[in-house]
Amino acid sequence: MISRRDFLGGTAAVVWNGRRPQSAVRRPQLRVDALALRARIEALSVFGRPAGGTFADGVSRTAYSDADVAGRGYVMAQMRAAGLQPRIDPAGNIFARREGTVATMPPILFGSHIDSVPNGGNFDGDLGSLSALGAIEALTTAGVRTRHPLEMVVWAHEESYAFGRGLACSRIVAGDVKASDMDEVWNGLRRGDAIRKIGGDPDRILAARRDKGSHHCYLELHIEQGGTLERAGIPVGVVAGIVAIDRYEAIITGFANHSGTTPMADRHDALLAASHLTIAVRDAATRRPGRQVATVGRLEVTPNSANVIPGLVQLSVELRDLDPRTLAQMMDDIRARASDIASTTGTTIEFRELARAAPAAAAPEVQTAIERAAASLNLGTSRLPSGAGHDAQMMARLGPMGMVFVPSVGGVSHSPKELTHWEDCARGADVLLRTVLEMDRTE
Amino acid sequence: MISRRDFLGGTAAVVWNGRRPQSAVRRPQLRVDALALRARIEALSVFGRPAGGTFADGVSRTAYSDADVAGRGYVMAQMRAAGLQPRIDPAGNIFARREGTVATMPPILFGSHIDSVPNGGNFDGDLGSLSALGAIEALTTAGVRTRHPLEMVVWAHEESYAFGRGLACSRIVAGDVKASDMDEVWNGLRRGDAIRKIGGDPDRILAARRDKGSHHCYLELHIEQGGTLERAGIPVGVVAGIVAIDRYEAIITGFANHSGTTPMADRHDALLAASHLTIAVRDAATRRPGRQVATVGRLEVTPNSANVIPGLVQLSVELRDLDPRTLAQMMDDIRARASDIASTTGTTIEFRELARAAPAAAAPEVQTAIERAAASLNLGTSRLPSGAGHDAQMMARLGPMGMVFVPSVGGVSHSPKELTHWEDCARGADVLLRTVLEMDRTE
Repeated sequence: MISRRDFLGGTAAVVWNGRRPQSAVRRPQLRVDALALRARIEALSVFGRPAGGTFADGVSRTAYSDADVAGRGYVMAQMRAAGLQPRIDPAGNIFARREGTVATMPPILFGSHIDSVPNGGNFDGDLGSLSALGAIEALTTAGVRTRHPLEMVVWAHEESYAFGRGLACSRIVAGDVKASDMDEVWNGLRRGDAIRKIGGDPDRILAARRDKGSHHCYLELHIEQGGTLERAGIPVGVVAGIVAIDRYEAIITGFANHSGTTPMADRHDALLAASHLTIAVRDAATRRPGRQVATVGRLEVTPNSANVIPGLVQLSVELRDLDPRTLAQMMDDIRARASDIASTTGTTIEFRELARAAPAAAAPEVQTAIERAAASLNLGTSRLPSGAGHDAQMMARLGPMGMVFVPSVGGVSHSPKELTHWEDCARGADVLLRTVLEMDRTE
Repeated sequence: MISRRDFLGGTAAVVWNGRRPQSAVRRPQLRVDALALRARIEALSVFGRPAGGTFADGVSRTAYSDADVAGRGYVMAQMRAAGLQPRIDPAGNIFARREGTVATMPPILFGSHIDSVPNGGNFDGDLGSLSALGAIEALTTAGVRTRHPLEMVVWAHEESYAFGRGLACSRIVAGDVKASDMDEVWNGLRRGDAIRKIGGDPDRILAARRDKGSHHCYLELHIEQGGTLERAGIPVGVVAGIVAIDRYEAIITGFANHSGTTPMADRHDALLAASHLTIAVRDAATRRPGRQVATVGRLEVTPNSANVIPGLVQLSVELRDLDPRTLAQMMDDIRARASDIASTTGTTIEFRELARAAPAAAAPEVQTAIERAAASLNLGTSRLPSGAGHDAQMMARLGPMGMVFVPSVGGVSHSPKELTHWEDCARGADVLLRTVLEMDRTE
């Protein structure tokens, strides 16, 4: 907890305009440059934009794509222009450090990611990454020095598009990596080569790990991606925790045969089984009360020809809830239904666990700091869980973590229609900046 | 009808070993070289074979692929070695003609195709194509001249893998083509360029059309692809007709959104709708008595990412039956169910008709000729419908058509496990050869 004396006294060393240092938190003029933030988000949106499209057509800047490499180059150039020296860690994450006044203090780490899902939007990740840059720039412009070093980060491969696991490069920093992971192959691309493509060093991948306590706290500004804040008319969300996510691949094996010569009764149709399974996955979430969700988002048919009965289907099963026991119960339901479906359709259904993300609680002191930062800007807040996974959940393994949410129009995300109003983007960036300063007051 | 005098007398001019011409039909030694046939089927199987695989691992020699081009090159080389001069028509079909003794008679056309479905087998099409070559070679070896010219054909793009329509190049020959069809694009490939790739001339595509009556009859040997002949222990099937095929694409539009932040009740999941529709397609076939079949063989999800609720699904709906009215009734059922599914899932479902193939009856006189040919070899026969489409149904538009079926082990086809025993292949080739001679006796 922060004491009342700490809050009133402040310790950030301000060297600006020749005046006496004072608490930055109480400086009403200390704001992130909202126009520059918007201009950068719009500039970044070009990398991975559909041919002939506009900002509103969204972006496909999947991790390790050429668009990703180009977008990272743009962000690093902006960091250099703001006086930062970006460096790429062995996992491909971009870091940049601004020194503090107390050499012994660990850094305050904050940032987000800039990779997107295929056909995604221009706010998910981009807002938090470019607001982190804007926050540092605001402090530099204002001549404010913090006690703790500040460390900005742009995580690589947050979206779980490649290599079957999300949050891939913050996961490495959190210690969840083996040297042999670099040999994993996805869509013909070796993971080590992918990391090398974005400037990482897969041969030194284990050196990307950080120790517990190596930073003072981790902060991340992000769009909510759900519709809670917008519906409630609340500008700032304070994340209480991030849901657990279990992800499986179901492999359904039937028998490929000619669609014209094989009677209905003789078929072993893997896609028919997959259809029943997709419905069963939904039922597992909807048949019990609560906010849990279950999704089949990816499905691949082999051989995928109009005149061949599908012999093989591979599909993703993703389960999310704050309580891991709910995930286990849903998966039990799905396995039981799968067994019936397999016997009815003459197929076999196998599940492989691809990833399991534990729920991550935000640190109470960081939640409080966010609420104070918002209050200093006269912005209302609400605590809420995050249904989406974030790099913050990996950082929760290493130290106190907190997240700031801003409203998503219509709760739409992972879509070109993803939208957060520019004034909400600016508010979020200011709350991030002030939370940095609030956390700088603690040790 | 063939008169008894014709049958006994024979008119094929045999110039062989200096002896007096006699009816080839009654020459017990006139057989296709079974070992050469097998050797060629095995040699052809290399083009499109999975890396490191064997003959039993099947083939992916899809139309217009590099493997297709290489396989066609092999077959043309074999044709030349057998004394034929292959030529490629503007549509990419390979023809070769052997002159007859009566200049005014139209040719007897026979053959099949060598393209395959992805991950298909080594008998579908290959057997009929290489048996056609073997039949001509047997006549040449035996010094037998027919009255009618003989014309062998290897149809291009029989399987409906590219460009959404099956039997694509025999369809062109049958007259179902517009010059603008060459501008169609599939998987980034322009149809005209695809046809040029295999040696066709898309600029002259209309010249590939043939007139009604331009051949005496069309014959095709093919594997049954169903299990009827094998189960009944009958070596030769005489095709009575080919089923009608209607093919649609269903376009299901939902709304792509984040899988973690979108409550189950707020989703517009196109894959959930597609799953219900896939089950409805099956139900449309199974809920009524009869041999009709209905298949969803191809399904594509967009954006197809584990953490995004699918916003768009495109899938194939294929319906087959001898009676086109049954197809219409099934489609009515499917449309009615689709309407319910769309409203339940908050999606829209649209159907586009991709192709409609009318049923095609085999000519009675050709069926009789096949039965006589089989009888001359002491092989039992059975008349049966073909559940699969064949180039023969396109040729039925231009003149009398008939097909010889040989047993498929287990009724398996369009699969690497597709198998017809070598002795059945040889029997089929001999029946084809003798049917050619039977038909040569008619005018």
